Amino acid sequence: MSIEVYLKEQNQNILDKLFGLLRIPSISAKPEHKNDMQKAAEYWKNILIEAGADKAEIYQTNGNPIVYAEKIIHHSLPTVLVYAHYDVMPAEPFELWETQPFEPTIKHDKIYARGADDDKGQGFMHAVAFEYLVKTNQLKCNVKFMIEGEEEIGSPSMIKWCYEHKEMLKADVILVSDTGMIAADTPSITAGLRGLTYLQIEVTGPNRDLHSGLFGGAVANPLNVLCKIIASMQDDNGKITIPGFYNDVLEYTDEQRKLINQIPFNEENYKKSLGIKELWGEKGYTTIERTGIRPTLDLCGIWGGYTGEGSKTVLPSKAYAKLSSRIVPYQQHEKIGKLIKDYILSIAPPTVSVSVEILHGGQPYVTPLDLPALDAARKALFDVYGKEPLPTMSGGSIPIIATFEEILGLKSVLMGFGLESDAIHSPNENYPLQNFYNGIKSIVKFYEYFSKTT
Amino acid sequence: MSIEVYLKEQNQNILDKLFGLLRIPSISAKPEHKNDMQKAAEYWKNILIEAGADKAEIYQTNGNPIVYAEKIIHHSLPTVLVYAHYDVMPAEPFELWETQPFEPTIKHDKIYARGADDDKGQGFMHAVAFEYLVKTNQLKCNVKFMIEGEEEIGSPSMIKWCYEHKEMLKADVILVSDTGMIAADTPSITAGLRGLTYLQIEVTGPNRDLHSGLFGGAVANPLNVLCKIIASMQDDNGKITIPGFYNDVLEYTDEQRKLINQIPFNEENYKKSLGIKELWGEKGYTTIERTGIRPTLDLCGIWGGYTGEGSKTVLPSKAYAKLSSRIVPYQQHEKIGKLIKDYILSIAPPTVSVSVEILHGGQPYVTPLDLPALDAARKALFDVYGKEPLPTMSGGSIPIIATFEEILGLKSVLMGFGLESDAIHSPNENYPLQNFYNGIKSIVKFYEYFSKTT
Repeated sequence: MSIEVYLKEQNQNILDKLFGLLRIPSISAKPEHKNDMQKAAEYWKNILIEAGADKAEIYQTNGNPIVYAEKIIHHSLPTVLVYAHYDVMPAEPFELWETQPFEPTIKHDKIYARGADDDKGQGFMHAVAFEYLVKTNQLKCNVKFMIEGEEEIGSPSMIKWCYEHKEMLKADVILVSDTGMIAADTPSITAGLRGLTYLQIEVTGPNRDLHSGLFGGAVANPLNVLCKIIASMQDDNGKITIPGFYNDVLEYTDEQRKLINQIPFNEENYKKSLGIKELWGEKGYTTIERTGIRPTLDLCGIWGGYTGEGSKTVLPSKAYAKLSSRIVPYQQHEKIGKLIKDYILSIAPPTVSVSVEILHGGQPYVTPLDLPALDAARKALFDVYGKEPLPTMSGGSIPIIATFEEILGLKSVLMGFGLESDAIHSPNENYPLQNFYNGIKSIVKFYEYFSKTT
Repeated sequence: MSIEVYLKEQNQNILDKLFGLLRIPSISAKPEHKNDMQKAAEYWKNILIEAGADKAEIYQTNGNPIVYAEKIIHHSLPTVLVYAHYDVMPAEPFELWETQPFEPTIKHDKIYARGADDDKGQGFMHAVAFEYLVKTNQLKCNVKFMIEGEEEIGSPSMIKWCYEHKEMLKADVILVSDTGMIAADTPSITAGLRGLTYLQIEVTGPNRDLHSGLFGGAVANPLNVLCKIIASMQDDNGKITIPGFYNDVLEYTDEQRKLINQIPFNEENYKKSLGIKELWGEKGYTTIERTGIRPTLDLCGIWGGYTGEGSKTVLPSKAYAKLSSRIVPYQQHEKIGKLIKDYILSIAPPTVSVSVEILHGGQPYVTPLDLPALDAARKALFDVYGKEPLPTMSGGSIPIIATFEEILGLKSVLMGFGLESDAIHSPNENYPLQNFYNGIKSIVKFYEYFSKTT
C-alpha cells in the first residue's frame, strides 16, 4: 500500500490521534500544568507503541518526563534517532485567538491549535510515517524516538538524560522536524543554526540618584557611560570591534556563499514588511548571510533612570543592559561570552563600576553538506515537492541540537515543514494539512533513501 | 530696640505664626489640596498686613492664588521686591518621617516640617525682618512682596501674572531666600543658576519586536542606534561635540575663576559621600566649575526592549531616552534645545526613524558681581557671620529667576540660608533655628546697607 493510499484510509484515525495530543495543555513554562506534562508523555508513549515500537518507556526527570521508544530491526542496520517535544508555549493572550487554543479546529485546510505546528504537529508526522513503514513491512533501518517536555524552557532535563543514556541513544543521525521551510511549495533543509551568548551589564555610578543640576558635569552618568560602552563595540561597517571576536568564525567559500544566497529573497518586500527604509548589517555580506552565517551583537533591553511621563531630572545611580550575541560555527558560546565580558570590563572607565553577568549560552550548529543523511533528506524532499531543497542557515538557535552533537556525537538533519504564517508561539498557531501530509510523505521517503545510502 | 532683643521678646509669637503656616498642607502638585492653597495665601496676606504692609491682596489665577503686598515709604526711595512661595512638595513617603510633616516640631534646635526650609521657613524670615523694621521705624526703602503657590510645579501662573502687573512690580532688585549656604557658619550668595533644556528621543526600527535570531544582523537595532547617537555627542574629554554648543557660554576670567574656586571643597569627602572612585567631567575645569559654570549633557532615563528577569531575546521596535542639558549664561534654552534636536536628527542613520521632542526649558541666570544690592547682601552677611560670603554658582535651576529678569528687567539677589542637611523635598525636612534667626538678622542688615548704597 502506498503512503498516499494509507493516508487516505487512515485520515480520520490520524487526525483523531493528533487532536487528542493537541487537547492536552502541556505548557512547560507553567508549573500548574505539571499533570498535563505526564499526560502528554503517556499519550506519546501509547502513540509509539500502537505505531509499532518494540518498547516505549517514560523516564522521570527532575523536570518533565521524557518518552523513549525504539524499533530495532537488526543490529547491523543503521539507526535513526527521532527527536521531538511535546511541550508547548503558553497560549496568552487568549483574546487574540479565533478558536480555542486547546480545542483543535480545522479551518481553511489548516489545523488551528497551540502546538499544531510546534512541535506536536511536526513531531506526530514521524509517528505516522513510522507506523506506515512498520505496518507495511518497509522499515529497513532501526528507529529510536526521544520526545521531551522542556524544549520551550531550554531542555534542562534533556541534557542530563542524554549523558545518562548515551549507550541507549546510539544512532547514526538525529532526525528532527521542528523548523520551517521557505514556502508551502518550496522545501528547504536547515543546515545551520546560530548559537547564542546572553549577558547582562550593570553600570553603577553614585551610590544614589543625584540631582542632575547640582552634580551634573562632575559625576559620571552611568547611562551615558553604558551608551559609550555599547557604541564602542561595533564600528560603522557593522563589524564587531572586540579583539578576537571573529577568530573562530567559519568562512564560507565563494561557491558555498552562492548556494546559500539562492534562497528566494526580495529586499523590497522584506523592508516593507518590517516598515523600514534601509537595511543594516555587516559590510560585505548579503542579508541572508548576515542572518545565517555571521555573528551579531544586539541589545535586547536597556533601562535606567526616569522612564515615566514628562521631564523629571535625575542623574541616576544605575544603568542596565541585556546584550545578546548570536554566534556561528565554530565560535563557542563560553569563549565568546567571556570575550565580550572581558572586553566590557577592560573598557569600563574608573569613574563607575561595571559588572557583567553571562546569563545564558547555546552553541551554534552546522550540518555538513556532505552528510549522507542530508543527501537522503534532499532526495526525499525532491521526490515529494519536485524541487531541489535549498540549504538554509537559520539565524535562530535550537541549543539542544548543538548539545546532542556534543554529548552523543551525532549530527542532526533538520527537515522542517513549518511556514512563517503558522504563527508559532503566537495566537492562532496553525499548521496546514498540506504541510502535515507532505511532511509524512517526505519522512517515509527519507527512510527509504537513508536505508539505501548507508 | 535691636533685632536681637526683638527676636527674644517676640520669639513665641514668631514661632506660633510660622507654625500656623507650616500646618497648612499647601501641596501644589496635588489637586485635592486646592483649598489649602487658598488658605495658605490668606494666611500670608494676614502675616503681611500684621507686619505693616500698606496693602495686601490675593490675586486669583488659573492656578493657585498669588499674594501681593507693599509698603511704600516714598516714591523717591529705592524698592526691594521680595519673592517667596507658599507651596510645598508632597510629603511622601510618610513612613520615613520621624514627626508629622504638617505638625511642626522642634527637636535638637531644628524645626521639623514639610516646608520648614523650602520655602515657608525661609520666606517667613522676610516677614519678620520687615515687621521689625516697620515697627521700629527703621525701614528706609520701599518693600513689595510677591508670594506664589506654584513654585514646585514650574510657576506657570506666576509668569503670566508678572506680565500683567509689570507696573505694580516695578522695583530695583528682587530679594529671594530659597537657596542654600555652604555651612551653618559659612555664608554664601548664589550668584549663578544653570538653566535647562530637556528632550525626549524616540528611535523606531522595525514595525514590531523581532526575533533577534531570525533578524539580528540584518535589521538595525534601535537600542544600539540610540547608544551610538548618545555616545557621539560627547568626546573622551567630556566636551560636548555638537557644533556651536559652546558658542554663547560665558567664559570667566582667571581672577573670577579663582574666586569661584574659593568655596571649600574636599574631593576625597565628595567622592566618599557619593561612593565613587573617580570624578569625571570636562577637561580643564574643576568640579566647582563643572557644576557651576559649565554646561552638561546627561541622560535622565533610557528604556527599550526586554527589561525583566532573565534572558529573553528580542530585537525591539522602539528605544527611548530622556536627555537633559544644564546650560549656563548666556546660552538660551530655546536655541540649545533646537541645536541638540537638529544635531540628533542630522546624525540619525536612515536605517531607523528618529524623533526628538523638546519637553521643557529654563534660562540660566547670573547676578553681576558689581550689582549694588549684591554688595549690600555681602556686607549684611559679613556683619552677622563675621565672614566674607562666597559667591556660589549653583548647578541647579530656578527658572522663575531668569523669567523675572526677562519680564520685569530685574536682577535677583539670592541670599539663601538652607543647609544640605535640611532635606528639602525629602522626609524629615528641617530648618535649624540658628539659620532662621541669622537669616532674619541678615535681611535686616541687608535693608540697612541697601538703603544707604542706592
